[in-house]
Amino acid sequence: MASPSTSLSLFLFLFLHFSSSFSKTSSVFSSLLLRPQTPPIDSLRHYRTAFFTQILDHFNFNPQSYQSFQQRYLINDTYWGGAVENAPIFVYTGNEGNIEWFAQNTGFILESAPKFRALVVFIEHRFYGKSIPFGGDEDVANRNSSTLGFLSSTQALADYATLITDLKRNLTAIDSPVVVFGGSYGGMLAAWFRLKYPHVAIGAIASSAPILQFENITSPYSFNNIITQDFKSESQNCYRVIKGSWQQIDMVANQPGGPQLLRKSFKFCKPADSQSIQNWLYTAILYTAMTDYPTPSNFLNPLPAYPVKQMCKAIDDPTTGNDTFAKLYGAANVYYNYTGTATCFDLDDDSDPHDLGDWTWQACTELILPTGANTEDSIFPASTWHYADRVHYCKSLFDVEPRRFWITTHFGGFNIERVLKRFGSNIIFFNGLRDPWSGGGVLKNISSSIIAIVAKEGAHHVDLRFSDPNDPKWVKDVRKQELNIIQDWLSQYYLDLAQY
Amino acid sequence: MASPSTSLSLFLFLFLHFSSSFSKTSSVFSSLLLRPQTPPIDSLRHYRTAFFTQILDHFNFNPQSYQSFQQRYLINDTYWGGAVENAPIFVYTGNEGNIEWFAQNTGFILESAPKFRALVVFIEHRFYGKSIPFGGDEDVANRNSSTLGFLSSTQALADYATLITDLKRNLTAIDSPVVVFGGSYGGMLAAWFRLKYPHVAIGAIASSAPILQFENITSPYSFNNIITQDFKSESQNCYRVIKGSWQQIDMVANQPGGPQLLRKSFKFCKPADSQSIQNWLYTAILYTAMTDYPTPSNFLNPLPAYPVKQMCKAIDDPTTGNDTFAKLYGAANVYYNYTGTATCFDLDDDSDPHDLGDWTWQACTELILPTGANTEDSIFPASTWHYADRVHYCKSLFDVEPRRFWITTHFGGFNIERVLKRFGSNIIFFNGLRDPWSGGGVLKNISSSIIAIVAKEGAHHVDLRFSDPNDPKWVKDVRKQELNIIQDWLSQYYLDLAQY
Repeated sequence: MASPSTSLSLFLFLFLHFSSSFSKTSSVFSSLLLRPQTPPIDSLRHYRTAFFTQILDHFNFNPQSYQSFQQRYLINDTYWGGAVENAPIFVYTGNEGNIEWFAQNTGFILESAPKFRALVVFIEHRFYGKSIPFGGDEDVANRNSSTLGFLSSTQALADYATLITDLKRNLTAIDSPVVVFGGSYGGMLAAWFRLKYPHVAIGAIASSAPILQFENITSPYSFNNIITQDFKSESQNCYRVIKGSWQQIDMVANQPGGPQLLRKSFKFCKPADSQSIQNWLYTAILYTAMTDYPTPSNFLNPLPAYPVKQMCKAIDDPTTGNDTFAKLYGAANVYYNYTGTATCFDLDDDSDPHDLGDWTWQACTELILPTGANTEDSIFPASTWHYADRVHYCKSLFDVEPRRFWITTHFGGFNIERVLKRFGSNIIFFNGLRDPWSGGGVLKNISSSIIAIVAKEGAHHVDLRFSDPNDPKWVKDVRKQELNIIQDWLSQYYLDLAQY
Repeated sequence: MASPSTSLSLFLFLFLHFSSSFSKTSSVFSSLLLRPQTPPIDSLRHYRTAFFTQILDHFNFNPQSYQSFQQRYLINDTYWGGAVENAPIFVYTGNEGNIEWFAQNTGFILESAPKFRALVVFIEHRFYGKSIPFGGDEDVANRNSSTLGFLSSTQALADYATLITDLKRNLTAIDSPVVVFGGSYGGMLAAWFRLKYPHVAIGAIASSAPILQFENITSPYSFNNIITQDFKSESQNCYRVIKGSWQQIDMVANQPGGPQLLRKSFKFCKPADSQSIQNWLYTAILYTAMTDYPTPSNFLNPLPAYPVKQMCKAIDDPTTGNDTFAKLYGAANVYYNYTGTATCFDLDDDSDPHDLGDWTWQACTELILPTGANTEDSIFPASTWHYADRVHYCKSLFDVEPRRFWITTHFGGFNIERVLKRFGSNIIFFNGLRDPWSGGGVLKNISSSIIAIVAKEGAHHVDLRFSDPNDPKWVKDVRKQELNIIQDWLSQYYLDLAQY
């Protein structure tokens, strides 16, 4: 697995799977036999679905830029105090996926709304879910770089500014303060939104937003190092078994009868090659680490509470003795088959290029988040980050060249403390240190109102999830702290409103 | 002149001439016989001309967006302390015109450079001067909305961020602080640049930047009201003569022998109709007010010191008795023929649609700065601001529809005190109250570091001009105050640099 070509594959894999992890049409999801249905949480009943006629290109005035598309948003006004009392508006700045999915997994906003008498709005990101330009036709929208070109973070932010401004105008709620929320890429958007549109949002809760995972601000290896730590912290044996497994899979796959053994061990529906098996396991380990929540969840897949612990429990299970594949099968089962409904696993990638997910496009143009695994210690095989690999991949897939420096040119990132210490205000950066993306997050307070909340035991945007009776105290404390800060922002705003 | 159609013409006129006033290819300039040559100030010898390969569209990733063009900038490193000492970089964010023209009229930056050991860079705005996309071919670039569409303030700001970042990288001057300067639209760009790119510029001097002259933030009539005040403050008679002249011109033009009388009175090379004459006078009055500098200047046309006073002196001249036209001729001569070289004036508009200036495009898409004259008191005939007129005009000229709310959506403007009191830092807004654009400027301090400097006697970005031995004390004081503030920003920056 350490040869250049397989390194590249691993890179591609990570890359595609990071992409697809956030996409409804992902190959990860579609390759899972008896794929779980939409989570049973009926939180969507709280929302009315609406559409806004959005402009295709905010920054250009050529005829094509004037084309419009229907942008979906979900709205709940049950708790809203209304325009008369300038009651606040809480907006989720949607990321790369169906907005309903984020609404289902971001209960914190809805649960906070009554306290603040807030209107709740979840806005879908262009090119995802039902917010598809070009007449809503995904085939057209995803056809090539001429249509995908309109998918960018800056256009998405301008969409949000335009939609929010129009919504407030229609509600005659011009003076209602807006607070934006987002997790992961949505958290990056929330933070950037506050920085770029301070006249639209008075503050931002940016949860697990790796805004420093660009260029060389953060080590490309921090991501996998954190996963390594996650598993090590559960059990050294668990870490060692996983670390040793890659070579073992390679070895067995190349032995006579090896493929059959692997197929049987992992209950694959069809024979699978070494690379596919490794990718399949990598995905399970990566996303389990990312969503290592303290309560059962169903963000990417249905998972038990503390799923990393559960994976390691399966690996450390004394009944499997020295059978590494039985151990790994048990671990994979935690991620891929927690509901116990799968009878075999199908690793075939049945996705066509359109199914690669539009995140791949974003990762091929501006969102270059370097990742790899090159330390001795890594739980994964060595894989060096080479920007050139990305360029090559994107060229071949989309015939597009990444704009390497664009994100830091437009949004900054270098010396963030120095820059934001004397500029900007009202941003919370939440990070859970078990989340591999936390390495690219803001982990230290920058000023009195640009605050880092760090939870040692936390995973990917755990703070934004629906509350659970079994939430540990630290989760409750984080949410309480965030609510207090939001309260401070609002109080300050109303004082200012009375004065200016 | 009060009929709807002529109101519209006046609107168009103001609009076109505001546009063309800033353009080298302007109809104002080209309609002046024996047009004065480029100002004799040889300040350009201080600069080296360079070009940067700029991307056509920063916010889109379709194939066309990757086209590049050569963006011109002027650079002076005579005084620069260099990367070793992280010496500062002073950047002029070019506005709607040839950058050489702004370099010639913005001596403040060059004169300040030695004190700060600063590198000086003047960057030209895309679509102006020599910074023409589409292979530098103006005919192609200005052909229609498909090519002009790439001309926008947001693209220009992104150009500046990209160029500055690249320049610093090439100079290995990553930690050199950048201060941006701009006047008029360039001042708007400087202020917006600091707000949108705080990681690129540590502060902005935004001189005569009417960032509040959008939608209904500022009265559309403030512009002409200020001109009215400028003339009234010199002499009530001067004001009355000008105010009364419009009707008189209309009347005489419609009398037998009237056109001949007008032609002779104003020394027109060819007969001119009433509307053209009024437009011609309007232009002279407007720009004289805007550039009512305390020393001789050559920004739009060669002018004496205090040109409004000179115009009124001509009008109040007792030797012309009751001859209104002789008085107006004298006034017009101050603006159009200060050098005394013109033997007759040609009012023919010899411009073709391309010569309308690209400012017209910007005013037809995003930069909708409402102006009109509807007060009893106005020195100009009544002309009500109707947004619909602009829409109609732009539709017919470019087949483009203005995006009415875009500027305030993207850059803000409403409740600027409330928004920026707790967000952002390090901006100086200079305004001279004799400048008609000052009505749309920021005239009050917003925070301890977002500062308004207001000069009662000042005209359009007088602070940024080359110093003159005859500068009055208040001009020197304004410049001194600005330098002190810049010094504070830099001192703070270097302290921060040592710490973060």
